[in-house]
Amino acid sequence: MDFKIALIRGDGIGPEVVGEAVKVLDAVGERFGHTFTYTDVLLGGCATDAVGKSYPDGTAEKCKACDAVLLGAVGGPKWGSDRPAEERPETALLAIRRDLGLYANLRPAALRPAMADACPLKKETAEQGIDLLMVRELTGGIYFGQREKYQTEDRGMECADRMAYSEMEIERIGRRAFELARLRRKKVSSVDKANVLETSRLWRSVMHRLAEEYPDVAYEDVLVDNCAMQLVRAPGQFDVVVTENMFGDILSDEASMVTGSIGLLPSASIGDSAPGLYEPIHGSAPDIAGQDKANPIATILSVAMMMRYSFHLEAEASAIEAAVDGVLADGWRTADIAEAGVTPIGTKQMGDLICQKL
Amino acid sequence: MDFKIALIRGDGIGPEVVGEAVKVLDAVGERFGHTFTYTDVLLGGCATDAVGKSYPDGTAEKCKACDAVLLGAVGGPKWGSDRPAEERPETALLAIRRDLGLYANLRPAALRPAMADACPLKKETAEQGIDLLMVRELTGGIYFGQREKYQTEDRGMECADRMAYSEMEIERIGRRAFELARLRRKKVSSVDKANVLETSRLWRSVMHRLAEEYPDVAYEDVLVDNCAMQLVRAPGQFDVVVTENMFGDILSDEASMVTGSIGLLPSASIGDSAPGLYEPIHGSAPDIAGQDKANPIATILSVAMMMRYSFHLEAEASAIEAAVDGVLADGWRTADIAEAGVTPIGTKQMGDLICQKL
Ligand SMILES: CC(C)[C@H](C(=O)O)[C@@H](O)C(=O)O
Ligand SMILES: CC(C)[C@H](C(=O)O)[C@@H](O)C(=O)O
Repeated sequence: MDFKIALIRGDGIGPEVVGEAVKVLDAVGERFGHTFTYTDVLLGGCATDAVGKSYPDGTAEKCKACDAVLLGAVGGPKWGSDRPAEERPETALLAIRRDLGLYANLRPAALRPAMADACPLKKETAEQGIDLLMVRELTGGIYFGQREKYQTEDRGMECADRMAYSEMEIERIGRRAFELARLRRKKVSSVDKANVLETSRLWRSVMHRLAEEYPDVAYEDVLVDNCAMQLVRAPGQFDVVVTENMFGDILSDEASMVTGSIGLLPSASIGDSAPGLYEPIHGSAPDIAGQDKANPIATILSVAMMMRYSFHLEAEASAIEAAVDGVLADGWRTADIAEAGVTPIGTKQMGDLICQKL
Repeated sequence: MDFKIALIRGDGIGPEVVGEAVKVLDAVGERFGHTFTYTDVLLGGCATDAVGKSYPDGTAEKCKACDAVLLGAVGGPKWGSDRPAEERPETALLAIRRDLGLYANLRPAALRPAMADACPLKKETAEQGIDLLMVRELTGGIYFGQREKYQTEDRGMECADRMAYSEMEIERIGRRAFELARLRRKKVSSVDKANVLETSRLWRSVMHRLAEEYPDVAYEDVLVDNCAMQLVRAPGQFDVVVTENMFGDILSDEASMVTGSIGLLPSASIGDSAPGLYEPIHGSAPDIAGQDKANPIATILSVAMMMRYSFHLEAEASAIEAAVDGVLADGWRTADIAEAGVTPIGTKQMGDLICQKL
């Protein structure tokens, strides 16, 4: 089959890790008989430098003309909060999520077998395994609500952010979570703050309705503060964790760190029809950019997610994941994940080794 | 000196742990020559059972007639989210915070020397020590903002919660954080989501202004998602962490769990004038209520915070903390913190042992 992929190489180490992911894509194409063609799309700090805007006009259209989007990383201190909003890379991230309707952010946090030692938790906990999938709502809530800023008489300036959720928004992300749980260990933990927030009470009532539609999937409500604790205490208890945008931002990063291997973790942001967007969860790491030091594995595993969720090519996805696990099992490490005494390899060599395993 | 203390014994194990804390108060009184007198105040599920409301009329006035409030724990499955708001214990908690103006919630998360093994993190991390103080804004933000609920044409029901912050609110909590840092390791980490939220941008600008007023205190901005990661990766890096209400709810519970000893952690909620409120961070644990199994240490350490922050009795505060550490160093444990092979002691015996050390 033929697939068109938009490449947002982005800033910092973005171009390097995307470069290796493209090598892997080509290797997969060769082995399984697909053709991947690429379109470069400018977004992030590099776009600000080139055209004065982090989200150039026509970006969404260019992406929509493709079957999936692969993003390396955007951002860096060069384009900080002192810049106007349209020049800041995070503005572009939020805009592309909204314009492509990418309401479901899938963030697996799993301890890969060869990397168990990297887990910051005690050995006993790590040995019980961690394999959860955070499903974060990505186009609603306080990220996209109304902002206010006004002068008061007695309290100085005052600002406000509005968090809103509709039944429709909650139901579609909830359904994704239940469907995904069916393909996994059949358990959904829905995280909210229903003892305080109105949006959380609506969230919970919709989730309860869905739970009845999926009687084969175990369901629980977890308060967000308790979830933040449980992720440290016993992350192995979770399978699919579904939550709203802001809670998901915090908890998915916490869950990632609990695995100890940020450099290995991929993500997928998907909607109902437009192309899905795939990206490593790590940042642009400008300090090591251009030095062949970055770890390309998270981006390569993002390509595996692309195969699975956008192209429904499960064998191809599994082959990439197996290749990564194989290279790690052979002991190869980039600098970020190298144990003491191991000589790290570079970005390119890691990419080459994974291609060879394919 | 004479001090009046309001006792909110509350639900579940609340009455038991408050009972032991009162024994400790009396022992402190005897040793240091103070008189503590007590007024019982009804609040929480027990109040709902008694008078149909979790926050009976006149509660705030009764507390204001005292010099400090000690709270055991409130809540339990008996008074769940199916009850009307005024019967739910958490409604009472939010109301008393508001009515007493308790805008600063201080939550120390420290690894006590004898308890280092309880830390869920790897030994190497635990050995670097954890000793941070979360300063959570407690009377503003999305906890107290406007709620909306309405029917839409095409998206079903929709709800909204408003997060607002004024310069005045941010400045007073920020000032507390800097003052507290001066008494500690002189570092403030301010947590926000300034790349997304308007309230966070105001938060950050006020904090930057304060940081200039406290040049002797090191200052950093930390994004909330990054903070959730750093608390797992290297909690030893933090001294005072200041943040808004909702982020503080999540991060202070995460930080507590990182120490591994929820049963030991106290908290203080203070304002500018009204009595401060002191309570353990653990819940009401209805499953073990009335069985002499609860750990009274968190409540006893809350009394130490009361000495320090409400009464400015530093020697008394330190004496209580030293007594607790002494009993732990002698190897005494309640069931919740007993290592394998250790025979746990009961609530009362733990209280007695701590009094003896005093
Ligand atoms: C850069 C920022 C706006 C973004 C977010 O908060 O969503 C990032 O933290 C993420 O999780 O992708
Ligand atoms: C019970 C609940 C309303 C409360 C909060 O969220 O503030 C609790 O979690 C806490 O942290 O004291």
